[in-house]
Amino acid sequence: MEWHETEIRVRYAETDQMGIVHNANYLVWFEVGRSDFCRARGFSYKEMEEKDNALMVVAESYCRYKSPAYYEDVLVVRTKVEEIRSRSLRFIYEIFRAADETLLAEGETLHLVTDENKKVRSLPESYKEKLLADEIPDENAFPDNQAPH
Amino acid sequence: MEWHETEIRVRYAETDQMGIVHNANYLVWFEVGRSDFCRARGFSYKEMEEKDNALMVVAESYCRYKSPAYYEDVLVVRTKVEEIRSRSLRFIYEIFRAADETLLAEGETLHLVTDENKKVRSLPESYKEKLLADEIPDENAFPDNQAPH
Amino acid sequence: MEWHETEIRVRYAETDQMGIVHNANYLVWFEVGRSDFCRARGFSYKEMEEKDNALMVVAESYCRYKSPAYYEDVLVVRTKVEEIRSRSLRFIYEIFRAADETLLAEGETLHLVTDENKKVRSLPESYKEKLLADEIPDENAFPDNQAPH
Amino acid sequence: MEWHETEIRVRYAETDQMGIVHNANYLVWFEVGRSDFCRARGFSYKEMEEKDNALMVVAESYCRYKSPAYYEDVLVVRTKVEEIRSRSLRFIYEIFRAADETLLAEGETLHLVTDENKKVRSLPESYKEKLLADEIPDENAFPDNQAPH
Repeated sequence: MEWHETEIRVRYAETDQMGIVHNANYLVWFEVGRSDFCRARGFSYKEMEEKDNALMVVAESYCRYKSPAYYEDVLVVRTKVEEIRSRSLRFIYEIFRAADETLLAEGETLHLVTDENKKVRSLPESYKEKLLADEIPDENAFPDNQAPH
Repeated sequence: MEWHETEIRVRYAETDQMGIVHNANYLVWFEVGRSDFCRARGFSYKEMEEKDNALMVVAESYCRYKSPAYYEDVLVVRTKVEEIRSRSLRFIYEIFRAADETLLAEGETLHLVTDENKKVRSLPESYKEKLLADEIPDENAFPDNQAPH
Repeated sequence: MEWHETEIRVRYAETDQMGIVHNANYLVWFEVGRSDFCRARGFSYKEMEEKDNALMVVAESYCRYKSPAYYEDVLVVRTKVEEIRSRSLRFIYEIFRAADETLLAEGETLHLVTDENKKVRSLPESYKEKLLADEIPDENAFPDNQAPH
Repeated sequence: MEWHETEIRVRYAETDQMGIVHNANYLVWFEVGRSDFCRARGFSYKEMEEKDNALMVVAESYCRYKSPAYYEDVLVVRTKVEEIRSRSLRFIYEIFRAADETLLAEGETLHLVTDENKKVRSLPESYKEKLLADEIPDENAFPDNQAPH
C-alpha cells in the first residue's frame, strides 16, 4: 500500500514559547492525515459514525520528534494503514517539511472500533475493503475545493 | 480593498461534545486568514518578527457565531484590513461554508504594533504599503505547494 | 451579584512563539470560569445538556487583551451573569494575574439557549433561578477534590 | 521515588464530537504534570530556559488510552522521573479519574536537554539533583495560591 499525502501549513497558534510547534499538535496532524486518507478512499469518519455506528477510538499513540517544525512551514503528513484486525487497526505516519524534505516526525496510532456506547465491535466489512483499496483518483473523490467564488 | 480568501477544512480535534466546532477555534482561523493575507502580499509574520522587530499583538477580538461549523466542512476564511493607524491595525473576517455559501461567522481583531519587549512602536512603512497593496498574483507569491513528490 | 472566582495556572501549551499566551486561550478560560460559576450554583453544563436538553451555544464572544499572561502565571478568572433573557444570557469576565493583581483581560460572551438540534428554546426556569442565586457555600457544592489518596 | 500528583478538571474545549476528551489533550496534561512535578521540587521550566539556557525538548511521546475522560471529570495526573541520563530524561505518567479511581491513561515522554539553539547539551547538575530529590513540603514550595482577595 502506498502512503497517502496531505499538505498542511503550520499555524501560529500551534507554536509555543520555545519557538517551535508544541508536541501535542502532531497527534492532531496525524488525525488530519487519517481523515484525509479515508476521504481519498471515498468515505469519512462522519459517515462511519453517523450511518454505521462505528467509531475509531484512539487506544494508543506514539510519536518520535526528530526535528522541530516552525511557523509557516508547509508540511506533508504521510499516512498508511499498517495493520487491520477484526476490531482494531493501526495507522502509521511520517511528517516531512516540504521545502527541504526533512523528516520531522514519525508515529503511529492504534484504534479500537466501537459503537456509540464505546463498546468494542467489529469493523464493518465495507470499510475494511475501502481502507485496503487504492486511492480513488482525485476527480472522483470527495470534492476538495468548493470555495464560493 | 478586496477580501483575501483562505480555504481550510474543519479538523476532528476542533469539534466539541456539542458536535460542532468549539468557539475558540474561530480565533485561530482568523489568524490563519491573517497569515495568509500577509503571505499573499509577499511578507510574513515571521519576517516582521525576526527581521524588523515588529510584532502584531492582538489587543481585541470579536466574533459573532451565526451558524455552526461541522467536522470536515470546507470553509473559506475571508480577510481584509479595515483600518491602519500608525501603531495599530484592524482586520475583519467572514467565514463561509464552501458547499452552501452559508455565512458561519464574522469578526474582527485589533492589533497593536510592538517591539519584542512588547513596547508599542509604529508599523514600519514598508509593511504598511504591503498591507494596503493589491494581492500579488499567485505565481509570484510565497510558494504554497512544495510537497516532496 | 458578586463575581465568581476561578483559579487556573497557565500551561506551556497555551503559550505561542511570542512567549505569551495565545489569544484564543482566553475564550477557553472564559468557558472554564463559566463552568465553575454554574458548578458553584449546584448544576453543570453536562446536566443541562443531558437531563434538560438545553444547550448554551455561544453566539458572540469579545475579549480585550490588556496585558500578556505568561507560562506558569496563576490567574483568577472572574465570572458574572450580566443579563438573562428568556432565550439568551450574557456572561462577563475579568482575568487577573494573582501575584500582582494586574488586570490582563476582560470580555463577554452571549449565549443562545437551544435544544440538541440547535433550535432556539427558552431557558428552563430552574436554571434561571440557579444562575441568579447566590453561590452555594463550598461544603455543599459539587465536590471539587476527590483525589485517590 | 514517589509519584507526584496534580489535579485538573476536564474542560469543555477538551472534548470532541465523540463526547469524550480528544486524544491530543493527554500530552498537554502530561506536560501539566511535569511542570507541577518540577515546581514541587523548587524550580520551573521557565527558570531552566531563562536562567540556565537548558530546554527539555520532547523527543518521544507515548500514551495508552484505557478509558475515556469526560467533561468536568476531576483527574489526577501522576508524574515520576523514570530515568535520568546526562543529556536526556524520561518521565512516566498515569491519569486517574478521582471519583472512582479508574485508570484512564498511562504514558511516557522522553526529553533531550538542549540549549536555546536546539543543540543537545548536558542537564545542569543542580537540576539533576532537584529532579531526584524528594518533594518540598507545600509551605516552602512555589506559592500556589495568590488570588487577589
